[in-house]
Amino acid sequence: MSETRTELVHGGDLDTARLRHPEAGDSWIDLSTGINPWPYPIPSIADNDWQRLPGRRARDELLQAARHTYGLAPEAGITAAPGTQLLIQLLPRLFAPTEVEITGFTYGEHQRCWSLAGHRVTIRQPEDSLAEDTQVRVVTRPNNPDGRILPRETLLDWADRLAERGGILVVDEAFADVIPECSLAPDADHPGLCILRSFGKFFGLAGLRLGFALGPPALQARLTDAMGPWAVAGPAMSIGRTALADQQWSEETRQALQKQSGQLDAVLQKAGLDILGGTSLFRLCAHDSASEIAESLAARGILVRSFPEAPRWLRFGLPPDTSALQRLTQALAHG
Amino acid sequence: MSETRTELVHGGDLDTARLRHPEAGDSWIDLSTGINPWPYPIPSIADNDWQRLPGRRARDELLQAARHTYGLAPEAGITAAPGTQLLIQLLPRLFAPTEVEITGFTYGEHQRCWSLAGHRVTIRQPEDSLAEDTQVRVVTRPNNPDGRILPRETLLDWADRLAERGGILVVDEAFADVIPECSLAPDADHPGLCILRSFGKFFGLAGLRLGFALGPPALQARLTDAMGPWAVAGPAMSIGRTALADQQWSEETRQALQKQSGQLDAVLQKAGLDILGGTSLFRLCAHDSASEIAESLAARGILVRSFPEAPRWLRFGLPPDTSALQRLTQALAHG
Repeated sequence: MSETRTELVHGGDLDTARLRHPEAGDSWIDLSTGINPWPYPIPSIADNDWQRLPGRRARDELLQAARHTYGLAPEAGITAAPGTQLLIQLLPRLFAPTEVEITGFTYGEHQRCWSLAGHRVTIRQPEDSLAEDTQVRVVTRPNNPDGRILPRETLLDWADRLAERGGILVVDEAFADVIPECSLAPDADHPGLCILRSFGKFFGLAGLRLGFALGPPALQARLTDAMGPWAVAGPAMSIGRTALADQQWSEETRQALQKQSGQLDAVLQKAGLDILGGTSLFRLCAHDSASEIAESLAARGILVRSFPEAPRWLRFGLPPDTSALQRLTQALAHG
Repeated sequence: MSETRTELVHGGDLDTARLRHPEAGDSWIDLSTGINPWPYPIPSIADNDWQRLPGRRARDELLQAARHTYGLAPEAGITAAPGTQLLIQLLPRLFAPTEVEITGFTYGEHQRCWSLAGHRVTIRQPEDSLAEDTQVRVVTRPNNPDGRILPRETLLDWADRLAERGGILVVDEAFADVIPECSLAPDADHPGLCILRSFGKFFGLAGLRLGFALGPPALQARLTDAMGPWAVAGPAMSIGRTALADQQWSEETRQALQKQSGQLDAVLQKAGLDILGGTSLFRLCAHDSASEIAESLAARGILVRSFPEAPRWLRFGLPPDTSALQRLTQALAHG
């Protein structure tokens, strides 16, 4: 069995949690991810989407829907991938080994993938300016897990300066769908900018595997070349196109997520947790007994996200319904 | 719109054919690929497969089914990918630029991808032995389009010698499901061997995107690392597992393909085409007027595969039913 040698801890690993906590029974609530618990309903899938190699027309229609929904700058390029993770894997392989800065603390795969491809990676604080020899900077915006949104002007300035050095600013907008007005997609024709957008988190379809890169056409063409034809599955293309174009569903979902995250905040605060930030898809909290709380919740079949690097932190995804919110409330009261 | 700068001509591009031949109407028969026209029936898909990130258990179950069905050597490693094409893209990026030999004439993406990654690529004849400075050789077996099967002993000898140089022999078994007894999977613990298996062609589900690499565990771990977690979609994992384990379907399908390819041969021979080879998923023919025949068929809504590099050749996939076989017979009579 092939096991990666550089595997990170991620949310969503319910299989491992079940093995570690047999006492919790079968009915787990997974709050360890930032995936919307109310998924976009899967439309009917044409036989051809499964049977044929995905064609140009399907790809173009998907990209057109993404352009429109993301408000992409008309001169910018766009690439579709089977999940943003693959873009995070491939981007570092398009550059000769160089100096890379990652604005931390953030999603761990950026550091793993730039390091794996032979780059020298430094973790920077959000307020740290660019070092002189840096060619690549990575920013997650809004940041995972704390929700911080670095100013647009700062990022466009960084992108300009990196472009002059032949480098890029990577802006991971994995959670930007909940605040579309903050996206840099309208600025994606800016030289030196590469924006990553995830489909599965906001639409609640993480198993579908769909993501996009946006930015100046030359880099997008290199990403497309690196993945080759047919990287995205036929069903992912047709479902993605339909879901991205459904603006009413998106608007209602943004409101529902906002409301549910407010209710989650109330429960967490009542249990004595400090809310540090997040987005309406997940909340980041701090507590002196964070690891004990996580263990106590796991023993009751509720999985949350811990951070080995920040032992006082816990991240909570949205409970999918009132009964799950109640189970969380009761489990926190026992903690 | 992101367009690859090194795009090749492939079969299956019905969108372009429709644009070029509006006179052919809407009801096209696509014989330009080697995809089984009788797909494995899509089983019901669990909501979780769409909604959650694919977990370890789903991955392990898929790999276990593939190990068993392919008869993989127990000590060998295995990696799942969203289609073999991505493996063909990533393999060249795991090696520093070196001398690569591709046994031609064959599937064009091998040459494109090794060249794109900066390697020096030489096309060799099947009977050509390894050059002294070669680190990587690529063989498609059975070969696409002519169906040639190089001897097992030759390939294992090449793998041994390449392994001593720190290189590999890549054996693309994209069409081996129709003759499983010819597969090198039982030899995949051999140092220096990397076997590629496609799911979509034999199971008729090319849009699903699923493929595997087999071979010594170290290289498999590097491929897994290069793709990262969650490369394969949840539905592809569950459908793949079910289909690979369905040995009765596979056996019946092999027989049906054999019978249909025999009927196709009869039609092609009657039309004066020389059959050069192929597999039971496609037939390679030669004719002095090959390009005129392809045009005449396209004007009648039948797409076949031409080869700019070999103008006398045409490749025919299997007509999906008796009526399609009859349409082909009649169209060839008009050619």
